[in-house]
Amino acid sequence: MTTTPPAPCAPEDVRRVACIGAGVIGGGWVAHFLARGYDVTAWDPAPDAEEKLRRLVAAAWPALEQLGLAEGASQDRLTVTATLAEAVADAQFVQESAPEKLELKRSLLAELDAATPPGVVIASSTSGYPMTDMQTEAADPGRLVVGHPFNPPYLIPLVEVVGGERTAADAVAWSSRFYDVAGKSVITMDRELPGFIANRLQEALWREALHMVANGEATVKDIDDSITEGPGLRWAFMGPCLTFALAGGEGGMGHMLDHFGPSLKSPWTRLEAPELDRELRDAMVDGCEEAAGERTYADLVAERDQGVIDVLRATGRLGGTAR
Amino acid sequence: MTTTPPAPCAPEDVRRVACIGAGVIGGGWVAHFLARGYDVTAWDPAPDAEEKLRRLVAAAWPALEQLGLAEGASQDRLTVTATLAEAVADAQFVQESAPEKLELKRSLLAELDAATPPGVVIASSTSGYPMTDMQTEAADPGRLVVGHPFNPPYLIPLVEVVGGERTAADAVAWSSRFYDVAGKSVITMDRELPGFIANRLQEALWREALHMVANGEATVKDIDDSITEGPGLRWAFMGPCLTFALAGGEGGMGHMLDHFGPSLKSPWTRLEAPELDRELRDAMVDGCEEAAGERTYADLVAERDQGVIDVLRATGRLGGTAR
Repeated sequence: MTTTPPAPCAPEDVRRVACIGAGVIGGGWVAHFLARGYDVTAWDPAPDAEEKLRRLVAAAWPALEQLGLAEGASQDRLTVTATLAEAVADAQFVQESAPEKLELKRSLLAELDAATPPGVVIASSTSGYPMTDMQTEAADPGRLVVGHPFNPPYLIPLVEVVGGERTAADAVAWSSRFYDVAGKSVITMDRELPGFIANRLQEALWREALHMVANGEATVKDIDDSITEGPGLRWAFMGPCLTFALAGGEGGMGHMLDHFGPSLKSPWTRLEAPELDRELRDAMVDGCEEAAGERTYADLVAERDQGVIDVLRATGRLGGTAR
Repeated sequence: MTTTPPAPCAPEDVRRVACIGAGVIGGGWVAHFLARGYDVTAWDPAPDAEEKLRRLVAAAWPALEQLGLAEGASQDRLTVTATLAEAVADAQFVQESAPEKLELKRSLLAELDAATPPGVVIASSTSGYPMTDMQTEAADPGRLVVGHPFNPPYLIPLVEVVGGERTAADAVAWSSRFYDVAGKSVITMDRELPGFIANRLQEALWREALHMVANGEATVKDIDDSITEGPGLRWAFMGPCLTFALAGGEGGMGHMLDHFGPSLKSPWTRLEAPELDRELRDAMVDGCEEAAGERTYADLVAERDQGVIDVLRATGRLGGTAR
């Protein structure tokens, strides 16, 4: 951390990261980058943003200590700036995590492009918009990529990286390498796909869950228990494809598909999303409140965080912990 | 284990369990019941069934020792019988795990009903058929229930319990209590639902995965990585509903639905299952073989088993292991 390479630089040489937007996702990115030993500048237009951000980082820190901090990592290396321009002026990588509004994203990315040193990659945390639709107003759309994280970004390794039609292939490759160096698990997509990959899978499951609750076929607790006591235990370390392959016995995926393929035609899964009316909404809200019981939001977050760490450690994904 | 209560008996007093069908699922049940200290009789029509079954149990035993054996549990308490009638003659509970063929299930359950002491509950491991359709030929359909496990039944806690139209409510309640006593996590359903709960959720995700592979939008590895490096890490200990509630920040599920509910209308998830043609089939098979690499089927099973144990331990679900 003694050199101060100019921006842009190689992914391995990045020292200074700017995080724009400091809500749950942006703040999670700040915590992650600080824990990995970067200098982080952050900007958010909310008046109480700095206080909230520092609280979020402080709350995440014990978890990050368990995961193992990079050498020199410190919460003190966070600078919250008064303006967007100050945040990115000296940045070697920019992570944008503004609210999911297309017009806002468009103008914000154009503004970031204008203020950030030439050639420095700017990544958006968007979970909803293709970069092609967001990069329309930027003078240099080639350096704009999507780097879609999962919540909380300081614990869940996955980042999905994809460019828009006007993104340079180099910027996609640079970002993938950078995230990898920065300790994330990267999936680089070669085309834009609404919802990316993991969210499409989650969304399919989620729609089915909503249907079941809407029809009184299962409660929120049934649904959550059916996952955590069942397939969820496997999915923490073995994905659905390989899991299904094992269900085929020694014949593997081939046996499974030849044997059970026809059941794909059975009308188990509903074909459309249910009407999200007041009744369904309230049933979901009540079910979750019931499931939470006496536990506050902070309790649940702490429980989730500790759980992810424990699962990571248990499955040999903490540094040096072979299984 | 000194008393020999008559059959039927209270769920807490069961000592002798019969397992009919000794393939991957039936054999997994045998291993589970042995580990929980029951005397187990097993029958399977395959000529090499006993050898395969004892090998399966022996392979599972180290995992079961890690989970913690019940007092007196022993592989020696397994008796493989020459006939179905001998297996169930003295049973206090019967678990049927025959192949998924409706006619076979119908006649087998009728045969089991005729041979099993009156009043003893007979549960089917079926993943596909409603009990209403399977209990048509039995003289006493009232004692026939579905007890649907997940693979492997000796490690994954979940069992979904549901009766058919002609099943007695008492038999459903008895089964749920018995599985609970026998160390399983039980979801008791009050109506028949094709695919039950967990499989409907899995199936929705699985269809989406097949679509993505079919369209070249993601590889098998992308899909598996997107789960194990992302949401799968959370699902081992917190279900999808509560996970989504946390995504709503302190506003919880209500904020989440009010905010993101409209995106349900976006056409992310496909509405029908893809054509499972040769090309898709082969892509899935190849992808899984690639993911498996040098690892044999046995390697992967051992890895999966160890992983589940580690995750169970990590998330405080091993006996007495507080988190």
